[in-house]
Amino acid sequence: MDSQTKSDNCLGWAARDPSGVLSPYTFSRRPLGSNDVSIKITHCGVCYADFIWSRNKHGDSMYPVVPGHEIAGVVKEVGSNVHRFKVGDPVGVGTYVNSCRDCEYCNDGLEVHCEKIVLTFNCIDEDGTVTKGGYSNHIIVHERYCLRIPSNYPLASAAPLLCAGITVYAPMMRHNMNQPGKSLGVIGLGGLGHMAVKFGKAFGLHVTVLSTSISKKDEALSLLGADNFVVSSDQEQMKGLSKSLDFIVDTASGDHPFDPYMSLLKIAGVYVLVGFPSEVKFSPASLNLGMRTISGSVTGGVKVIQEMIDFCAAHKVYPQIEVIPIQYANEALERLEKRDVKYRFVIDIENSLK
Amino acid sequence: MDSQTKSDNCLGWAARDPSGVLSPYTFSRRPLGSNDVSIKITHCGVCYADFIWSRNKHGDSMYPVVPGHEIAGVVKEVGSNVHRFKVGDPVGVGTYVNSCRDCEYCNDGLEVHCEKIVLTFNCIDEDGTVTKGGYSNHIIVHERYCLRIPSNYPLASAAPLLCAGITVYAPMMRHNMNQPGKSLGVIGLGGLGHMAVKFGKAFGLHVTVLSTSISKKDEALSLLGADNFVVSSDQEQMKGLSKSLDFIVDTASGDHPFDPYMSLLKIAGVYVLVGFPSEVKFSPASLNLGMRTISGSVTGGVKVIQEMIDFCAAHKVYPQIEVIPIQYANEALERLEKRDVKYRFVIDIENSLK
Repeated sequence: MDSQTKSDNCLGWAARDPSGVLSPYTFSRRPLGSNDVSIKITHCGVCYADFIWSRNKHGDSMYPVVPGHEIAGVVKEVGSNVHRFKVGDPVGVGTYVNSCRDCEYCNDGLEVHCEKIVLTFNCIDEDGTVTKGGYSNHIIVHERYCLRIPSNYPLASAAPLLCAGITVYAPMMRHNMNQPGKSLGVIGLGGLGHMAVKFGKAFGLHVTVLSTSISKKDEALSLLGADNFVVSSDQEQMKGLSKSLDFIVDTASGDHPFDPYMSLLKIAGVYVLVGFPSEVKFSPASLNLGMRTISGSVTGGVKVIQEMIDFCAAHKVYPQIEVIPIQYANEALERLEKRDVKYRFVIDIENSLK
Repeated sequence: MDSQTKSDNCLGWAARDPSGVLSPYTFSRRPLGSNDVSIKITHCGVCYADFIWSRNKHGDSMYPVVPGHEIAGVVKEVGSNVHRFKVGDPVGVGTYVNSCRDCEYCNDGLEVHCEKIVLTFNCIDEDGTVTKGGYSNHIIVHERYCLRIPSNYPLASAAPLLCAGITVYAPMMRHNMNQPGKSLGVIGLGGLGHMAVKFGKAFGLHVTVLSTSISKKDEALSLLGADNFVVSSDQEQMKGLSKSLDFIVDTASGDHPFDPYMSLLKIAGVYVLVGFPSEVKFSPASLNLGMRTISGSVTGGVKVIQEMIDFCAAHKVYPQIEVIPIQYANEALERLEKRDVKYRFVIDIENSLK
């Protein structure tokens, strides 16, 4: 299907069919354009999206799929018009690599909502090729979509910020959750949820983790620093929390009822949904009688991503990561499916993809 | 069950059982307290709540039920500590007549969310009696829950503001819908919906009415002043509206899908629900991918009600009303059930309840 020629200049790992099995694959990146940055990838986070498109779960995978949209690395070359970055700079790339740069959303720092957005992998690029992600040793992106990583921030830790981190940070900021003393509930304690806990604590919030499993209690409290842990099936505990939370960030992607969680919100409380259950269903009373709000979000624009990275560096907020070699990627995706990860796999591209 | 004695001082119309049939009924109002205002009721709006509790639709009716919580009238007596009102002042009373006046909600102008709120009818008052509403010739309320009606504003028109009006005005203000040039969709064109259209136009919005029935088109455009009318079952028309609205106010209480309406919102659009369908159900993509918000509301605090009344007087915003005698109340409730009303019945208490 795709021939490997001498011009192929990038080594990655790709899934070739819906089995989703990843294996080495060489392909071409486009030549460096005048506004482009070429990045030597050192690390790539393993996101649930990688699992979805490797295995064609949405029916729109374009094989070979090179997954990965939590990319960290070092600038190795810049185009002639690029002045914001120089060779050697630590940088990152998130879930998208292009947009129109001319619509109301692009102009408003909401590139992620541009109708012409080009996602980092499994998306038709403006040259007609299919984008290939960060399970590879380099990538070329327009400088606008390149994030600066402060030199004191580990690249391995930076990677998961670029999807998991921003997915919770952006709506938390949009809904003014950075008010010390207010209370936050976090539903789900995976890659996204554990970052919501960390941001919550960094913002000075009183953080309650709402989980289906008591097994996560110790880590939630001691490792992640949550103030409270409630098993959501325990009706007594849930009743005790009734109308006590200012905010909820719901990161659960599995199906779950909404009314019991919404009842925990104070009057005018805000419930942010970032997961993708099969449906959202609740009683209008849960919303109306408490003057409550439920709001959705997906990642964020370039400006807020940069703000988040800078915030994490300034406040020493680091994701909990398990660094793995690329050779472990298939097992990592299987463990991700079983939610057997604490809390984000990060592939050490630099030292294992050769 | 309840004996009528010589001390009975108030004439009203009450439902005696779940048949909901209203008929004359005399009862006692409490003596005037030092902080109370006694109001001669001149008009009372007919709200769907009157239908619900007259007929025990929620299973919690306490008969006899004297409905009515859109009350307008004239002060006839004030307690010794009342300085804000004097005899002869035009005033109104809305959906509640008491609250604790000491909690965070009362202190924040959100009396409607006070846990000790006393609703205007079919609610246990602080003296243990059951409150009785505005289908009666006078009412006594603590002055805090008494609204001032500007002398140039007709009392008959003021009545529907106190539930239908505030139910849409409060969330519209809370979500900053008073931005001229922005676009508003209104779902449902009854008592609430027609007020949302009127407020939308008074705020300078481009207003689209979304209705299941083409029959309302002419009135929506010519009488209510909407800019656009779309039949929600017409997929072509709906497609043409895709991602075009900044705001939606959904006043429909019947069950309906949410995804088709949510798709009309721009990125970051706000959908306010004030109706009570049996459930709210939508795809998380409708919320997340568009960074949209859905928010609920019920009436409003005293402060915002007063603001609304003053706004209506200043901007000549008047509900469309059909003034009826109390003797027509039973037929009015039946027509209300059939949605056969344009757009609010208002009972002429002063001239018909004798």
